[in-house]
Amino acid sequence: MANDKKMVEQITAMDTDFAQWYTDVVKKAELVDYSGVKGCMIIRPYGYAIWENIQHDLDTRFKKFGVENMYMPLFIPESLLQKEKDHVEGFAPECAIVTIGGQNKLAERLMVRPTSETLFCEHYKNIIHSYRDLPKLYNQWCNVVRWEKTTRPFLRTSEFLWQEGHTMHENEEQAVEETLQMLKCYEDFYRETLAIPAVTGRKTDKEKFAGARETYTIEPMMHNGVALQGGTSHYFGDGFTKAFDITYTDRENQVRYPHQTSWGVSTRMIGAIIMTHGDDNGLILPPKVAPIQVAIIPVAQHKEGVLEKAGELKALLSEKFRVKLDDSDNSTGWKYSQYEMKGVPLRLEIGPRDIENNSCVLVSRVSRQKTFVSLDNLVEEVEKALVSVHEELLARAEKNLAEKTSVAASHEEFLDIAENRPGFIKAMWCGDSACEDQLKDETGGVKSRCIPFVEEHISDKCVCCGKPAKHMVVWGRQY
Amino acid sequence: MANDKKMVEQITAMDTDFAQWYTDVVKKAELVDYSGVKGCMIIRPYGYAIWENIQHDLDTRFKKFGVENMYMPLFIPESLLQKEKDHVEGFAPECAIVTIGGQNKLAERLMVRPTSETLFCEHYKNIIHSYRDLPKLYNQWCNVVRWEKTTRPFLRTSEFLWQEGHTMHENEEQAVEETLQMLKCYEDFYRETLAIPAVTGRKTDKEKFAGARETYTIEPMMHNGVALQGGTSHYFGDGFTKAFDITYTDRENQVRYPHQTSWGVSTRMIGAIIMTHGDDNGLILPPKVAPIQVAIIPVAQHKEGVLEKAGELKALLSEKFRVKLDDSDNSTGWKYSQYEMKGVPLRLEIGPRDIENNSCVLVSRVSRQKTFVSLDNLVEEVEKALVSVHEELLARAEKNLAEKTSVAASHEEFLDIAENRPGFIKAMWCGDSACEDQLKDETGGVKSRCIPFVEEHISDKCVCCGKPAKHMVVWGRQY
Repeated sequence: MANDKKMVEQITAMDTDFAQWYTDVVKKAELVDYSGVKGCMIIRPYGYAIWENIQHDLDTRFKKFGVENMYMPLFIPESLLQKEKDHVEGFAPECAIVTIGGQNKLAERLMVRPTSETLFCEHYKNIIHSYRDLPKLYNQWCNVVRWEKTTRPFLRTSEFLWQEGHTMHENEEQAVEETLQMLKCYEDFYRETLAIPAVTGRKTDKEKFAGARETYTIEPMMHNGVALQGGTSHYFGDGFTKAFDITYTDRENQVRYPHQTSWGVSTRMIGAIIMTHGDDNGLILPPKVAPIQVAIIPVAQHKEGVLEKAGELKALLSEKFRVKLDDSDNSTGWKYSQYEMKGVPLRLEIGPRDIENNSCVLVSRVSRQKTFVSLDNLVEEVEKALVSVHEELLARAEKNLAEKTSVAASHEEFLDIAENRPGFIKAMWCGDSACEDQLKDETGGVKSRCIPFVEEHISDKCVCCGKPAKHMVVWGRQY
Repeated sequence: MANDKKMVEQITAMDTDFAQWYTDVVKKAELVDYSGVKGCMIIRPYGYAIWENIQHDLDTRFKKFGVENMYMPLFIPESLLQKEKDHVEGFAPECAIVTIGGQNKLAERLMVRPTSETLFCEHYKNIIHSYRDLPKLYNQWCNVVRWEKTTRPFLRTSEFLWQEGHTMHENEEQAVEETLQMLKCYEDFYRETLAIPAVTGRKTDKEKFAGARETYTIEPMMHNGVALQGGTSHYFGDGFTKAFDITYTDRENQVRYPHQTSWGVSTRMIGAIIMTHGDDNGLILPPKVAPIQVAIIPVAQHKEGVLEKAGELKALLSEKFRVKLDDSDNSTGWKYSQYEMKGVPLRLEIGPRDIENNSCVLVSRVSRQKTFVSLDNLVEEVEKALVSVHEELLARAEKNLAEKTSVAASHEEFLDIAENRPGFIKAMWCGDSACEDQLKDETGGVKSRCIPFVEEHISDKCVCCGKPAKHMVVWGRQY
């Protein structure tokens, strides 16, 4: 138990310093290491395995929608990035730029892709000619670079991993449908796979993606009341297709511009998992993406038959789950703390007395509840226990989201909540970005997160200027 | 049939111009498109799906060896690359270099990774302390950049996708064992999955990887008699670990340097597939990596029941295979050519008479042989037919390898073969790199490919200088 205590003490308590707690968790759970390149992270095997599980799940969802994966170059010639005015203004300032290749100064500078709309447009121009070529539903899994001043593992890094979907459609209706469908896909994934509920909606003009006509967003709420932009889906209209002169011949033999979307989520989702589910003992991983779903800890493993039985259980469970048997000579207490810290959803304890009783003990990482189960139907019991961990996580996160959502009917109330109650604030808005600026300044950072799909009626007036309200907006601080 | 002919004519015949044939195939089979960035390729969905199948197969093999995936940064600070003398000499000249980030000139230039030994070493220094931390078996799937003057899709591009394994071991014995094990892994993969036989062996000092103590290579033989370096596995000894001061405490409590390996294969393998198996009608894909394994072509599809039956067969076969049913209104002949050109291993034809007979026709892409099979055991028949395509491809490639391997006992014979018989040349060598240079100059490009694991005795003398021979070397031109 001495070891046990020591392990737990290594992590700063959430209430003491949430930022330090986060840093402790990502380091001590061996998710990342810092690299010699400022702002770039090393994703260690335990962290990368979470990403692989995320990729596999999302990729399966995408493919069901008919999306095809492909791969675009890492570099964007400067002139190509400049083709769409708003887009270049948004992204050029944060680009890493290659100026030398093969020991020669390049005639044209190359931007390391911050996102690939321009590359996809250039390619689509070559391959889209007729309505028969539409829709095009392409996606790529890749690395992108956005030069950041202040960085944090997973949340904001100069290089990160993501997927970017880029689609082309015959008309506005189909493109908007795609945009919303992919946002829904993200929402389902967050809930069903990551056990994370979220607010979804449309960004205000001020917060839109550079070059988009509409940006839709998914915004989960972290444990400390700070929101995270967890994924976005953009409708571009024909802005890029006009700039890139991409046309097709429609069913009536008319030449038209296709309508475009893009949508993406990134390794930032791992940050969302950590800050939604973690606790003072470390990480808690949703079972569907946990690299280890069950940690088998033999009790009194020197006693005859214990390791043998533990090995049998490992073989049995490995057919269906991701299982680790820790038969190292570390103390049982150390092992308990270790796998708690690493967020393994389920611990299985098996000792001499359990073997006698033909049973074992399952311990949930969330509730810490112990359940004695018979070895006769162990696979079913483990399955049930993992489902239950997912449900507990989701229920807890929903409670947190509800508790950290306030309603502000007046300017005064808005400022009071912004100062004293971390979380989302629902409040009315006139539609003027000047009010967004003012609220952000007055609160030191509370911004519009989105106009949710279902807007409640709180009052008739903008919470800032008092003019007639156009929308209910969800506001909040963000990572 | 008019369409059929036209399709085939679009591809230049191999014998007319092999290079043009290759370019035609990669473009017309929609494997790649050219991008606006010189030397960078767009990997289109059909090409990328081959890569995904390759990744899945190889990754499963790696994980069986206990290899863990992780992710290193894209950028290498110039000072880090310079830590190992031979390594920087080999790679610095072909680096793309980032000099600007976030609109500011960087204090230190960043190399876009050409390979990641230095990054792995920097990380290993942080996490390796004791023999208990060894071995470390890490791998990453990523993009790398090597600035190339002359480029060709898949074969030589400025950016390419690959996997790079980087491992650390307690001593030389274990590291060398790993190096050879991974080369064997590649050899098995080439044969079992890609149906490609190859020569394997050790590179001469002149042809080694920059910084490696030994480089092992797998060298398949293309259809036109040119070899391809298809994958390499390097043993580094403690060269890098000394340069990076990575030490561990061994089992006797002594401080020692670990021994290191790295090994990699890339999207170049897709080039090997094309040039090993393809023919004048286009691509031929080995069934295990083919994005479409079976193309179902309905015959007289306007007749009652045909499309319905074709749909049933698709549903049935999709449970086990990757299947495409083409019910478009293109002609049957056009479809036949189209899926031949795209290298689909097996075509399934189903028409009214077949349905009456409760049968269908399977056509092999390799032998073009037609087989009538009963629908009662279709899954088994398709399985058998795909295995048979793999075996036919492998047998054909082995025949090509044997036919394109010559033996040269004298200098004169060597030069004659180099000029007149494309392919490998087996010949004795004294061990002096001056002879490698001379033979390369005299032949306009024939280089040592490797010293194979089993060396035949051809004569006692070096084929070039006549001094006592140390090794039998396999020589050849390369992509």
